Amino acid sequence: MSAVRADLPVVGALLLSEIREQPAVLRRLADQAETFQRVADEAVARDTRIVRMVAHGSSDNAASSGVYAFGLLPGWTALRDSISLSVYYGAEVDLRDSCVLALSQSGRTPDVVDYVERAVGRGAFTIAVTNDVDSPLAQVADAVLPLLAGEERAIAATKTYTAQVATVALLAAHAAGQGPAYVDGLRVTADLLEQLLPELEPALASVATQLAFVGRMLVVGRGPEFATARELSLKLLETCRVAAEPLTATDLAHGPVAALDSLFPVWAIAQDDASLPTVVEAVTRARAAGATVIASGSAALALPGAQTVIPVPAAPLPLLGPLLSIAPGQLLAWALAQAKGLDPDRPVGLAKVTLVP
Amino acid sequence: MSAVRADLPVVGALLLSEIREQPAVLRRLADQAETFQRVADEAVARDTRIVRMVAHGSSDNAASSGVYAFGLLPGWTALRDSISLSVYYGAEVDLRDSCVLALSQSGRTPDVVDYVERAVGRGAFTIAVTNDVDSPLAQVADAVLPLLAGEERAIAATKTYTAQVATVALLAAHAAGQGPAYVDGLRVTADLLEQLLPELEPALASVATQLAFVGRMLVVGRGPEFATARELSLKLLETCRVAAEPLTATDLAHGPVAALDSLFPVWAIAQDDASLPTVVEAVTRARAAGATVIASGSAALALPGAQTVIPVPAAPLPLLGPLLSIAPGQLLAWALAQAKGLDPDRPVGLAKVTLVP
Repeated sequence: MSAVRADLPVVGALLLSEIREQPAVLRRLADQAETFQRVADEAVARDTRIVRMVAHGSSDNAASSGVYAFGLLPGWTALRDSISLSVYYGAEVDLRDSCVLALSQSGRTPDVVDYVERAVGRGAFTIAVTNDVDSPLAQVADAVLPLLAGEERAIAATKTYTAQVATVALLAAHAAGQGPAYVDGLRVTADLLEQLLPELEPALASVATQLAFVGRMLVVGRGPEFATARELSLKLLETCRVAAEPLTATDLAHGPVAALDSLFPVWAIAQDDASLPTVVEAVTRARAAGATVIASGSAALALPGAQTVIPVPAAPLPLLGPLLSIAPGQLLAWALAQAKGLDPDRPVGLAKVTLVP
Repeated sequence: MSAVRADLPVVGALLLSEIREQPAVLRRLADQAETFQRVADEAVARDTRIVRMVAHGSSDNAASSGVYAFGLLPGWTALRDSISLSVYYGAEVDLRDSCVLALSQSGRTPDVVDYVERAVGRGAFTIAVTNDVDSPLAQVADAVLPLLAGEERAIAATKTYTAQVATVALLAAHAAGQGPAYVDGLRVTADLLEQLLPELEPALASVATQLAFVGRMLVVGRGPEFATARELSLKLLETCRVAAEPLTATDLAHGPVAALDSLFPVWAIAQDDASLPTVVEAVTRARAAGATVIASGSAALALPGAQTVIPVPAAPLPLLGPLLSIAPGQLLAWALAQAKGLDPDRPVGLAKVTLVP
């Protein structure tokens, strides 16, 4: 059960309660099919072929999933666009046929707002994906997709990350005429996540003990799960000071495999999809180099030689898989911070809203 | 002077000699203006608006510079496209108005060749950027831009990386009608690099001693110098087993700043351009967190509080800056590997041509 326990620890209580809120947030988004259809219809009506996603931090990690959602559903090219190219260097890139998807929990990230203002002025269709519908970002964009996650008080994003991944998938699905299937799939995924979280909490507390002395890690994922690899790495970096670096399974073979040894674990995230063989190959090479392997994702059991296996259920649709596969990473960030004597709710040096450029 | 010395060390001799060959390689590329103009003319004639760059490892790092070169010169949207989206997941993305730029030193990277074959079949204009004009990649693409770097024998790429950065800049410049200025600029840059390398060799040997016990590092760069941050990180990872992670200056503020402390150096690369204030801000925050800062690039002296400063000359054109600013990273990889008792020519676990998917 996912209700908040009476014995919540003082340290990390915010982060844990927000992790537990995620099924409810996903259900609220599933209730917004009309909003998604209206915004998707407008993107289609404006002949969108390119989706320019702009974001930082966890929002940018969520945008990684959009490359696959927009590419596989409406067949649009989605890219994590360079903010500096437009905002700092003033490039005048052709924005015909472009839809801008600006992701910011607070809606106040200065260079994201600046990017959208420029894009509006040059005729792009702009969509704000934000938790604050009164924010500057929401005000400047042509359309708003609210994250409906409620106030996020822990510094490290959790429920707004999964809300963004779900929002991207729902928008892509509605643009491709597959809205109802994805709304249904999201409800099923929310139920699966609600069952999963209380099972994972004690499991990850145990993994945290095992990883308390790890200073660095490679995190491997491919396809839609590259977003998970990026977000898991950021969570460990910002809350636990672990130098975790996300890589695609193929990237690992192109250089970083040389850095592996028995003191350097590799976390691999696998779904049973077309990229599974490349993840299996990467894990095989990591094991051959003596690295400890932690396997998660719905195909965790397919990864050979993993010392620690944290399977999650398969989502009803592959593009919704990242909503489940990030859960072990979120809970590890919570548990490992405590094991290391850090406060996961308030990492030193971070603010909730990053206002520096 | 850059001639190969008689007293070359046995370990790392290949890597060092190839680093020293770079000015000559850049001059050979500057002699190919007609080839660049012909290929650029064809890309323009085919109404290119999107450049899809596909590559892995160092070639993918070089592609990062293309986002800025194509965005700022012809105003084209250039993206490091997802290979897995097309090759593994079979997405049918619209390729009208797309030019594919496939970068592979060997021309034999299987999924890059596969991507290009599919793109040719769907009507894109495809260009192979390769060191082997007889390779499968060169055979399948519509046009070839040879890297002219000569055989690269060290496992870690150096001269083919800079040749790729120069090729991308020359192609973008010719597409924008600025070919002659960039050809001249490349010749000046080659001369600057030839002067710079022998000055840097002893300087980096000294920095290597200082960094011999560093296991992790953040490497910060923005705009065109993000390519340098990525390539410097990969060099340290593959030859020296340092967990170096590349970040844009803004990424650092969105999370990773929380992981900084006095045991965790930050390498910052700065040019005197529109993004310099964000790099200065990032370095100021890193210093406030107690991190040691190493500053390089043509604006290294503008970074406050850096303990180690490795300035390089400004290139005559900002997009050519990465050709000079990667040199300290290449030489550090060579020197640090030796300081750590590793062989930089043959990192354990790596092959020159990565044939796994």
